Amino acid sequence: MKTGTLYLLPIPLGEDANHTLPEYLIQQFHRLDYFVAERAKTARRFLKEINHPKPMSEIHIEELNKHSQAEDLPFLLKPALEGHDLGLLSEAGCPGVADPGAQLIQLAHNRQIKVFPMVGPSSILLALMASGMNGQQFCFNGYLPQKKPDLIRKLQLLEKQALKFKQTQLFIETPYRNGAMFEACLEALAPNTRLCIACDLTLPTQYVRTCDIADWKKQPTPELHKRPAVFLLGH
Amino acid sequence: MKTGTLYLLPIPLGEDANHTLPEYLIQQFHRLDYFVAERAKTARRFLKEINHPKPMSEIHIEELNKHSQAEDLPFLLKPALEGHDLGLLSEAGCPGVADPGAQLIQLAHNRQIKVFPMVGPSSILLALMASGMNGQQFCFNGYLPQKKPDLIRKLQLLEKQALKFKQTQLFIETPYRNGAMFEACLEALAPNTRLCIACDLTLPTQYVRTCDIADWKKQPTPELHKRPAVFLLGH
Repeated sequence: MKTGTLYLLPIPLGEDANHTLPEYLIQQFHRLDYFVAERAKTARRFLKEINHPKPMSEIHIEELNKHSQAEDLPFLLKPALEGHDLGLLSEAGCPGVADPGAQLIQLAHNRQIKVFPMVGPSSILLALMASGMNGQQFCFNGYLPQKKPDLIRKLQLLEKQALKFKQTQLFIETPYRNGAMFEACLEALAPNTRLCIACDLTLPTQYVRTCDIADWKKQPTPELHKRPAVFLLGH
Repeated sequence: MKTGTLYLLPIPLGEDANHTLPEYLIQQFHRLDYFVAERAKTARRFLKEINHPKPMSEIHIEELNKHSQAEDLPFLLKPALEGHDLGLLSEAGCPGVADPGAQLIQLAHNRQIKVFPMVGPSSILLALMASGMNGQQFCFNGYLPQKKPDLIRKLQLLEKQALKFKQTQLFIETPYRNGAMFEACLEALAPNTRLCIACDLTLPTQYVRTCDIADWKKQPTPELHKRPAVFLLGH
């Protein structure tokens, strides 16, 4: 049986940002009626927003998120195995990057299902571009340790790696803890280490600033509370 | 004097791929008449292709590439310092990632010029999405050593890091050496290490495949010669 293709479908990074999606991506959304999403509710809302031609009752959406088990994956991939094209989306940005979607994509490769990544917004990529830091080598570290002593130690380790290997270090924090992360950076890092904070990327409230720690200490504290942000450190 | 904004402008990853650019990006290109590009010739050709409303004689394009010196940067940024919006583009994909553009962006931050990254195709991001490998933590390593013994050693080091830190390792090669890189991977890496090859991303000839080294050895060698590719290894 001819299998379907697994399309990797970016969605906007927040509200009022649908214009950041290329038209060929919207058209692909319109052509699909099988989807796997982190949250079905988010997926349905988005499909209605972009005027999907079919009614929700004819669209199949299953969930893949942190509560899913490995044994759920074959069921989620089933439409593609049975010949239907299938769309994978996450809660924001690009699927398969820092989300549970990678496991489904891995199974697709194992089952010789074609995987088709599509172009759209990624806060990690946009932050790296805008930071002005070395993009020849970079490392995305995800979430850092929560406990303050462990966090300080980790920040100093990343600072060492950035210097030694000329490798920009990226990390994220749960938005309501951004302020504490910023304070930890000021405490842990050397005065001439550069820190970039990239906040609300692609949204009307977008904020990107890179300067060294000594300069961050001279400025008013940026307002980061509950705003999606990416942090970068380098030289 | 009110300064201009530095817009970071992605361009397609190859021919027949303009549809991967969102419309808001094309509109921004149309609004600008000052650009910094890796190659002015590439920039002019692209501006004509997307029907820039101004004749080339009224568009200002300066070059920033591997031949540029640090002392050229202030001159390149001058339009923005003087109040004009300025667009930065690279030879393909997103500027400021693995190209000389980062230095101009860094100077912009130092001079309090607003930096505005825009959404477009990145082979690094698309490869990571499509690979099915862990995107929670990943490292882009750029080009690896060329001499075979050094390359083998580096691949095995990346393999160790991938396993120890659950960190997907990405790297690239000059396209005419892809075949030799593939052979080096088969020689250096363990049978159960997963290798993804992502080739010609967003182009009609796009090819993405992930399997473990033992499986790669059982298949016909993929045709990679002179095709832009991203390699990923992980578990």
